[in-house]
Amino acid sequence: MIIIMNPAARPESIKAVEDAIRSLGLRPFLNPGVERKVIAVLGEMGLRKADLVERFSIMPDVDRVELISELWKLASRTYHPEDSVIDVCGVKIGGPEVVVMAGPCSVESEEQTIGVARAVKAAGAKMLRGGAFKPRTSPYSFQGLGEEGLRILARAREETGLPIVTEVMDPHEVDLVEQYADVLQIGARNMQNYSLLKRVGSSGRAVLLKRGMGSKVKDLLMSAEYILSEGNHSVILCERGITTFEDSTRNTTDINAIPVLKNWTHLPVVLDPSHSTGDWKLVPAVARAGVASGADGLMIEVHNDPQHALSDGMQSLHPDRFAELMESLRAVASAVGRSI
Amino acid sequence: MIIIMNPAARPESIKAVEDAIRSLGLRPFLNPGVERKVIAVLGEMGLRKADLVERFSIMPDVDRVELISELWKLASRTYHPEDSVIDVCGVKIGGPEVVVMAGPCSVESEEQTIGVARAVKAAGAKMLRGGAFKPRTSPYSFQGLGEEGLRILARAREETGLPIVTEVMDPHEVDLVEQYADVLQIGARNMQNYSLLKRVGSSGRAVLLKRGMGSKVKDLLMSAEYILSEGNHSVILCERGITTFEDSTRNTTDINAIPVLKNWTHLPVVLDPSHSTGDWKLVPAVARAGVASGADGLMIEVHNDPQHALSDGMQSLHPDRFAELMESLRAVASAVGRSI
Amino acid sequence: MIIIMNPAARPESIKAVEDAIRSLGLRPFLNPGVERKVIAVLGEMGLRKADLVERFSIMPDVDRVELISELWKLASRTYHPEDSVIDVCGVKIGGPEVVVMAGPCSVESEEQTIGVARAVKAAGAKMLRGGAFKPRTSPYSFQGLGEEGLRILARAREETGLPIVTEVMDPHEVDLVEQYADVLQIGARNMQNYSLLKRVGSSGRAVLLKRGMGSKVKDLLMSAEYILSEGNHSVILCERGITTFEDSTRNTTDINAIPVLKNWTHLPVVLDPSHSTGDWKLVPAVARAGVASGADGLMIEVHNDPQHALSDGMQSLHPDRFAELMESLRAVASAVGRSI
Amino acid sequence: MIIIMNPAARPESIKAVEDAIRSLGLRPFLNPGVERKVIAVLGEMGLRKADLVERFSIMPDVDRVELISELWKLASRTYHPEDSVIDVCGVKIGGPEVVVMAGPCSVESEEQTIGVARAVKAAGAKMLRGGAFKPRTSPYSFQGLGEEGLRILARAREETGLPIVTEVMDPHEVDLVEQYADVLQIGARNMQNYSLLKRVGSSGRAVLLKRGMGSKVKDLLMSAEYILSEGNHSVILCERGITTFEDSTRNTTDINAIPVLKNWTHLPVVLDPSHSTGDWKLVPAVARAGVASGADGLMIEVHNDPQHALSDGMQSLHPDRFAELMESLRAVASAVGRSI
Repeated sequence: MIIIMNPAARPESIKAVEDAIRSLGLRPFLNPGVERKVIAVLGEMGLRKADLVERFSIMPDVDRVELISELWKLASRTYHPEDSVIDVCGVKIGGPEVVVMAGPCSVESEEQTIGVARAVKAAGAKMLRGGAFKPRTSPYSFQGLGEEGLRILARAREETGLPIVTEVMDPHEVDLVEQYADVLQIGARNMQNYSLLKRVGSSGRAVLLKRGMGSKVKDLLMSAEYILSEGNHSVILCERGITTFEDSTRNTTDINAIPVLKNWTHLPVVLDPSHSTGDWKLVPAVARAGVASGADGLMIEVHNDPQHALSDGMQSLHPDRFAELMESLRAVASAVGRSI
Repeated sequence: MIIIMNPAARPESIKAVEDAIRSLGLRPFLNPGVERKVIAVLGEMGLRKADLVERFSIMPDVDRVELISELWKLASRTYHPEDSVIDVCGVKIGGPEVVVMAGPCSVESEEQTIGVARAVKAAGAKMLRGGAFKPRTSPYSFQGLGEEGLRILARAREETGLPIVTEVMDPHEVDLVEQYADVLQIGARNMQNYSLLKRVGSSGRAVLLKRGMGSKVKDLLMSAEYILSEGNHSVILCERGITTFEDSTRNTTDINAIPVLKNWTHLPVVLDPSHSTGDWKLVPAVARAGVASGADGLMIEVHNDPQHALSDGMQSLHPDRFAELMESLRAVASAVGRSI
Repeated sequence: MIIIMNPAARPESIKAVEDAIRSLGLRPFLNPGVERKVIAVLGEMGLRKADLVERFSIMPDVDRVELISELWKLASRTYHPEDSVIDVCGVKIGGPEVVVMAGPCSVESEEQTIGVARAVKAAGAKMLRGGAFKPRTSPYSFQGLGEEGLRILARAREETGLPIVTEVMDPHEVDLVEQYADVLQIGARNMQNYSLLKRVGSSGRAVLLKRGMGSKVKDLLMSAEYILSEGNHSVILCERGITTFEDSTRNTTDINAIPVLKNWTHLPVVLDPSHSTGDWKLVPAVARAGVASGADGLMIEVHNDPQHALSDGMQSLHPDRFAELMESLRAVASAVGRSI
Repeated sequence: MIIIMNPAARPESIKAVEDAIRSLGLRPFLNPGVERKVIAVLGEMGLRKADLVERFSIMPDVDRVELISELWKLASRTYHPEDSVIDVCGVKIGGPEVVVMAGPCSVESEEQTIGVARAVKAAGAKMLRGGAFKPRTSPYSFQGLGEEGLRILARAREETGLPIVTEVMDPHEVDLVEQYADVLQIGARNMQNYSLLKRVGSSGRAVLLKRGMGSKVKDLLMSAEYILSEGNHSVILCERGITTFEDSTRNTTDINAIPVLKNWTHLPVVLDPSHSTGDWKLVPAVARAGVASGADGLMIEVHNDPQHALSDGMQSLHPDRFAELMESLRAVASAVGRSI
């Protein structure tokens, strides 16, 4: 159960609700510092639920009370039945349009980045992805250009008008990345980095949250809840493949997760077929599958010279192939009543 | 490497090839009793490959020599670059049309089976699936009607003209099931039941081979190779979900496996979204994903009264929903240049 | 719930019980042809359980009634609280002694087999394992010597007195294998080959049932239930590794499964560290872990010339290393209050 | 290949080595700010390896050159063949003694913590574990007492003399946690939080690095390499279970990982059977398995009132059961030539 207070709820009203919760042997949870006060009621409510809704609904400054049995509350469709549509500089994710975000895995140079940005825009991409801070398995791998990479992304945005999605890895880098990025990406390896989730939860930027490769759908929603419960409601979920015993691909695309998430949450869901397959030859088929299964967007790696990419070349499409793919994606989107 | 002999190759020519293989420290493998003789050459060939091709190509009664480095040989695209199209009573699987096989998990009664058969035919299904011999995790679950189930399926075929796909679980039941079935299904749990694979390898019926839930794509191809190497080249592969840590669905649909298989083998590939999700609410999205990713067919459970099905009710679609799904599948098939 | 009838229960008493079950909206399950009649009661019993026990307990020819909520019934510790001790030619599995079964993966020749048999006996093994019928992923791999292999195993038994464990892959080979084997092994790939399980369920030989690499502990117990429900109560369970994303080993030893199984079932549990690791260098550490975790036995591959083994050489120990391992296993067994 | 410079290597010598590496088409990698300069040579060296070792060995200020083909270098046994023994306030991990770290999942109060600390010390534990900062899947779960928790841990150390292991979740909390902790724990969810790894890599405290539940053994070593390459060589690895399809336990203990890690790295390896099973009833068997398989230590959750623990009660042992377990662990340690 969650209790949503009026925007102007007085502290004494909040305290009264909290005391009432405790007096029933339950625990109140209130996010400190969040503007709109939402009090989660935790503990076993047994058969008293309907009574409780009534009881709390009439307390001062209570806006409404929602019975939500899922572990995630603000992320739940029960709490928010309509699809959330997130507006990023005019690009709407979660609505009728399937939004394609494309670009290089890593920002390597201004020339490369702007070249790829122009190409993906021409092919129909609506956002530019690119990494300036790169989480790499090996400390000896290219770790990204850092702030210089962010500046290059900003120049690519100036050139093309495409909003930027880029990763942030450390809560204390959020201040910096926010100055450049339109969407803050939380990488798969940081899906349960709770310090980072809380920090982006208080950001004014939208957040793209990637599923951890060993994480369940439920855990992804719980991580989204961390961000939502800090007051940032612009959260985009991203399926990017999970680890399984299958070794013919780098990861296993969990295509089931797309409709499961669409049933359980109002948040938009995108698929990253580049990481979920790890092989550019498989990206087109799996990208089409993503659109057909109901994804609200795709995140695709495109590189002008995949064989010499500093990271993930194997899974990056050449701009020509990306343009071909966009053609076929348009047809599939149309077949399921959407547009690209 | 494999050496394909002429259809009328004399025994002494075959023996000469085998002796030549052995003299090089390699091992010949010949399927006894198979009409077209194909000798697989096993062992480490090192750098001598090109020489070996030349050497064997000129031996008497040798048709041609193919260098195939994959563990699977007859199943490989290297061996057979064009798509194999399998004809089942006039229904062609592996060609431009996406073939939908639908029907109840278990055959429960004549009325139910014929009712469902008519409904799925009306909606556009081209084959009827239904289980007479059911592999059940529990010995206390309904095990299928056996031969009576086969007879019911045959009557449904008479009524509708739909060819029948049905499971066979025991090599010694193949004689019986062959009398009724148009396609012999090997279930996931029997994917590595080699006695059964060998037996259906000498059948005149097409075989639908389901991937084991804990089996790699490579192992699926090796199991197909068992059937092919016995001389039966009508093998249809079926992805039906794998076991992973994700617990929001019964299995995880390995959608990547569709394009991987299409790259590696010439055999047709179908997806079973009913088993790969375990939840009828997810079947439409995942069925569409299958078609979008390049599957040559779908296998879908349909039951006229899912809530009272004797098996797998949770994952069976009602005929009305199936008809709706077929509509949307047609649109997706068309978007990827195919028809249903 | 299961209802155990008296050994001499009359058919009319059985029918009366079945009718009473049906009259309550439940389903009776009776194994046809099994001597001791046990009727499983299937369906939702709700809150009536205690009443039902009383009601059926007083019916004619009923011995006793057991409330068993697990899906497996005869395999459950609720049904049979004491450890089952299985006697194979005087070797007792499931008692205080940890029984080591060792031998080559495949029987390759009489000399090899007898040589290894003598070596493992000298080191303290109590049973000889060896494959005559080999389930191989590739149709081009060595498939075992067949009946000649069984004869060699029998000669090794004559020489050493060690009982024989050997695999059977086809229900119609059971007649043959029974003539030679003391324990019928069901391989991992056949764990859900229900025709085979039913056939060995009516054998007089003990059965060693290996867990499928993609199968849950619960499914292993359900497969055991197939054998038990046919009347063969001499079932030994074997953990042999599962498929996971970890790729530094062939399989992942599920060591948790040992105590889980010992809690849930009365049947003896053995560990096969050769398959569960796939690497002879890891076998000693994991074998010791097995004994320390409570396994009732170990199944270990030993080959006199691992580098030239026709199968699984990588995971086979040389007899000298096996003898060293046995020394350390004795110490670990003693540390947990058992002997070897 | 890695090139180890003399401790007093001059900048111009380092530059000369880097230039020489680049002139060969390879890439040098040097950790900035680390005292002992180690230059990793990255790229394909082909057949020139022996030549290269000689060439670099004779350059000024080069101490020695090591050929290491693994992706991890400083963590490799090739680089450091002897076991690393890490001294934490006199407790030596990685030597002949198996070190048991025990304590509550979360620090809940001073009374609880000191009570448990005394009990585990009396039973033979050598370090106290306890969480002050808790990574919790749900934002609505107890998140730990924070700095107050650290103070309580410090008081428990004063009382018992046990060094403290406690988790740090944010690079910017390391300054704080270092003031209290003897070992900084990196939790499974943060195994690939590279900002955090780098920060603890420059700490003077030992680090206990837990394996991510979806991470391969190789990735664990790469994460350790991040810490080592920043100059902190006191890294303890911890297996704590991985996610698999098996659902009878919370995680699957990867017992194979213990000997695999002992073969591949010189770093000490401990097992956390509380998390790797998720069930206190299974902890003793799996703890014994850990010692038998060669683990250098165990990390075990102990709570004085498991049923009312604020986190992980299900997997915590009562102090009495912990004391019993320690008895049996001593016997197993002795059986494998070690002590507790």
